[in-house]
Amino acid sequence: MHGLMMDYALTIPTIVRRAELYHPRKEVISRLPDGSLHRTSYGAIIARARKLGTALRELGVQPGDRVATFCWNHSRHLEAYYSIPCIGAVLHTLNIRLHPDDLAYIAAHAGDKVVLVDRVLWPLFEKVRDRVAFEHVIVLDDGAEGPPIPGTLDYETLIAAAEPHTFDTVTDERSAAAMCYTSGTTGQPKGVVYSHRSIVLHTFAFAMADIDLARENDIILAVVPMFHANAWGVPFTALMMGASQLLPGAHLDPVSVLDLIQRERATVALGVPTIWNAVLQTLDSNPGAYDLSSMRVMASGGATVPPTMFRAFDRHGVHMIHLWGMTETSPLGSHGRITSTVQGLEEQAVYEHRFKQGRAAAFVEMRIRSEDGIAPWDDSTMGELEVRGPWVVGAYYNAPESADRFTEDGWFKTGDIATIDGDGWLTVRDRLKDVIKSGGEWISSVALENMIMSHDAVSEAMVIGLAHPQWDERPLALVVKRPGRDCCADDVLAHLAPHLPKWWLPSGVEFVTTLPRTSVGKFDKKAARQTYAGYFDSAPIAGPIATSPVANLE
Amino acid sequence: MHGLMMDYALTIPTIVRRAELYHPRKEVISRLPDGSLHRTSYGAIIARARKLGTALRELGVQPGDRVATFCWNHSRHLEAYYSIPCIGAVLHTLNIRLHPDDLAYIAAHAGDKVVLVDRVLWPLFEKVRDRVAFEHVIVLDDGAEGPPIPGTLDYETLIAAAEPHTFDTVTDERSAAAMCYTSGTTGQPKGVVYSHRSIVLHTFAFAMADIDLARENDIILAVVPMFHANAWGVPFTALMMGASQLLPGAHLDPVSVLDLIQRERATVALGVPTIWNAVLQTLDSNPGAYDLSSMRVMASGGATVPPTMFRAFDRHGVHMIHLWGMTETSPLGSHGRITSTVQGLEEQAVYEHRFKQGRAAAFVEMRIRSEDGIAPWDDSTMGELEVRGPWVVGAYYNAPESADRFTEDGWFKTGDIATIDGDGWLTVRDRLKDVIKSGGEWISSVALENMIMSHDAVSEAMVIGLAHPQWDERPLALVVKRPGRDCCADDVLAHLAPHLPKWWLPSGVEFVTTLPRTSVGKFDKKAARQTYAGYFDSAPIAGPIATSPVANLE
Repeated sequence: MHGLMMDYALTIPTIVRRAELYHPRKEVISRLPDGSLHRTSYGAIIARARKLGTALRELGVQPGDRVATFCWNHSRHLEAYYSIPCIGAVLHTLNIRLHPDDLAYIAAHAGDKVVLVDRVLWPLFEKVRDRVAFEHVIVLDDGAEGPPIPGTLDYETLIAAAEPHTFDTVTDERSAAAMCYTSGTTGQPKGVVYSHRSIVLHTFAFAMADIDLARENDIILAVVPMFHANAWGVPFTALMMGASQLLPGAHLDPVSVLDLIQRERATVALGVPTIWNAVLQTLDSNPGAYDLSSMRVMASGGATVPPTMFRAFDRHGVHMIHLWGMTETSPLGSHGRITSTVQGLEEQAVYEHRFKQGRAAAFVEMRIRSEDGIAPWDDSTMGELEVRGPWVVGAYYNAPESADRFTEDGWFKTGDIATIDGDGWLTVRDRLKDVIKSGGEWISSVALENMIMSHDAVSEAMVIGLAHPQWDERPLALVVKRPGRDCCADDVLAHLAPHLPKWWLPSGVEFVTTLPRTSVGKFDKKAARQTYAGYFDSAPIAGPIATSPVANLE
Repeated sequence: MHGLMMDYALTIPTIVRRAELYHPRKEVISRLPDGSLHRTSYGAIIARARKLGTALRELGVQPGDRVATFCWNHSRHLEAYYSIPCIGAVLHTLNIRLHPDDLAYIAAHAGDKVVLVDRVLWPLFEKVRDRVAFEHVIVLDDGAEGPPIPGTLDYETLIAAAEPHTFDTVTDERSAAAMCYTSGTTGQPKGVVYSHRSIVLHTFAFAMADIDLARENDIILAVVPMFHANAWGVPFTALMMGASQLLPGAHLDPVSVLDLIQRERATVALGVPTIWNAVLQTLDSNPGAYDLSSMRVMASGGATVPPTMFRAFDRHGVHMIHLWGMTETSPLGSHGRITSTVQGLEEQAVYEHRFKQGRAAAFVEMRIRSEDGIAPWDDSTMGELEVRGPWVVGAYYNAPESADRFTEDGWFKTGDIATIDGDGWLTVRDRLKDVIKSGGEWISSVALENMIMSHDAVSEAMVIGLAHPQWDERPLALVVKRPGRDCCADDVLAHLAPHLPKWWLPSGVEFVTTLPRTSVGKFDKKAARQTYAGYFDSAPIAGPIATSPVANLE
């Protein structure tokens, strides 16, 4: 027996039409390349998105065709977000920070037919253009300087000439709406293809009262790039709820970000820990210089947040929460909003829950697979995190070689090493490829990093596993000191020793001025491992470590 | 091109399994027939629901079979809610307040195979039992007195003997999960069949940050009966979010309701205006007697709330919001949370928005059809409200004669007369069958009622249209005075006169001690029209009303 409710498809055009009716005057504010602010509204953006839709159709874009963007976060990028899926095409956000080789591979693999490029990003895009068979390159003139670019189309000219599109093409909620490639720290980049259904359901989940990152009266700053897992869904969630959006353009430096928060009274901000660490250093160096009283929550995702950062932002009156997710999970997997069951605990216990990655969003299911099978939820049995749900990837685009990322019973293998406690709180301990395999046991590089970063003189730390003649791998710590502060390797080891088994202590500590980053701002441990390859090759057999690591557990 | 996200069905078992993992210790508190409180948890309820599932299967319940309930709001009714859809059967909540003739019709029309009955309700159910071919009647022994009932099964005995069910039967999200009949004030009662998909999507919508009626840390009192449009979805939304539930059982009197709010520190309460009006009178009569400081919001739906009630609850420190919906809309259609665009207006304008039915929930679309076609959103053009969305009825169950409730392009005709303003705020002016057609124009009975109820000496008022020899119909006001207060017909008319066109003024005012109610607590205007039929038959042609009503507009 079937239900008799309407057969109403879950598609992005419904969200867009809703915003036209209910939120036309809500503002979207973007920072332009020259640093000035550009103000517009959802009504104006969607009116232009409708024209863009017709222009793209007239250029030959058919339903299912991929239309790429190569843009910062700004209102015209939003126009592309709202237009391309609504004419049945597929929005493909290219990651501007990737190497041209990767970009050329990705654009060709996706089969991008048209690409929209920020004028200010042309010098980067130029290196890719001739290596991909784009039918059309459309340039968004953002006021950046430079000569006219032969063979390209002008975005504003196209829009000025077009009639509004009806946005009634999409009828099947399982149609592709958007795609995004993983940054590819292992193997070739892989494409995730979101459907209208998955984006709508993710939007509902992100809009839930308990995550509480997008109310109608919020002013949301998405520092996370719009080419990074759809800016975590903010462009769609904010649109559905009618929240205002602040888009920082190319200006991701902490002073610009803080200025935007203060000037426009942001209430919510989302970004990766790297950004927030830089913001924190600026706040610490300029006490009282910024008014952040408008902020009700700052969300951090994409990498684990060191515990010290939660406390530091608390001191500045900003409440930070953890989000966990991946490009493959749309990206909302879990969030660290404190529950009533935790609220009643002692202050330190509440903090320790905030350091975790939180509890799964409704309709995301999680489990841990250790070497012994599905692990208990005991907060200590580590294994690979597996997830499933309606906005979790089911297969990569044209990548049969990636079938091993899915279990036989259809769960996605995240590549994260994690534990879950008895109340469902997830703690990501490491990436599977970064966890350090020492003498048959696992050492969490993230745990070491967090503890090193809790040293007063340390600004940042990365720990990598490197080949070792006796122990398979051993940890090397790369440490950045705080400006004007000093410390030595022995200080770092002495800081760790009381809290860790001896065999967890790094076998080397190197002080550096910067740490390598990936294109989305995460630690690039692959690059660091290449730089320091062979570091332990001449290490003495049996050095500071006992013969059996477990025997040394304190 | 299709998306490549997981093909993950939207079904109720996912919500139930989530609660087992994430919210097992959150409380559900029910009031028993003897007035005492019974405390249990989601973990215990679902463990019992799994056993109930097996017991029902062993009684022969197959996927698609209808299993009815004849129960008050309590934790065992929740067990049925969580069990029946999870074994693929259809939860059919019977409205205990209907006439036995209607109940017999409904249960037979739905083809109910099994029915669960509260012991305390047996005297009511007895009148129906032999008129319907139930295969099994299961009695929930709630401590009510009475002799054993021959030929029935005992709920606790069944559960004690059963193994837990796996709840993995449902794979198709469009399967029927629940059904509910409209109370049938016109024609035969009609069945609405909810699917797993529609209930899951409705749950997400209800859980949104802007409606904000169900956070994890809420304690939600559903005064609205669980046989009234699934208690507005609270049983599923609270379960998904992990909010605690307070269930009042048979004790819907204002003193019991207030006691439950105060004793258990309820944060959210939902019910019809009739209940809240009674609560208000009790509060007004006992100043300071109740501590309602735990309440963050009181939601009222099912009928329009008189403006005076918002102000009155404000004085008691309780914030009331309007919900609009119907059995046919699952029921969430719109909600009256104040938006940032309204928040900045003057106090009176903010109030006037609160009196409206609010703005449509995301993915519910609304339009007004007047005699001239689709009406503008100008706050003044009245017409029938039409809606569509994924949790709106697409057809009634086995009721081809009801096809006229749907438009040719697939919208549902609500039977409500409404206007929508330029920002999308809905105002329900009347029911189509209650609006008073006088001299070719429409008079809103609800507007008249609200204005009469703003008179100090008036407790409640109902206005009905009755046949009139000259004007087709004219309004008759039925007025209940406040205890200890007095007023006369002329007082009432004088109170209205400054604010209304002359031809809107009731042509008669009658003082009564109670007003007739429907089974779900709404005004029963059909009954009132029968009681007062012929009231204006001997009215003089051309009386206090001018010949053309429009010419009299002031």
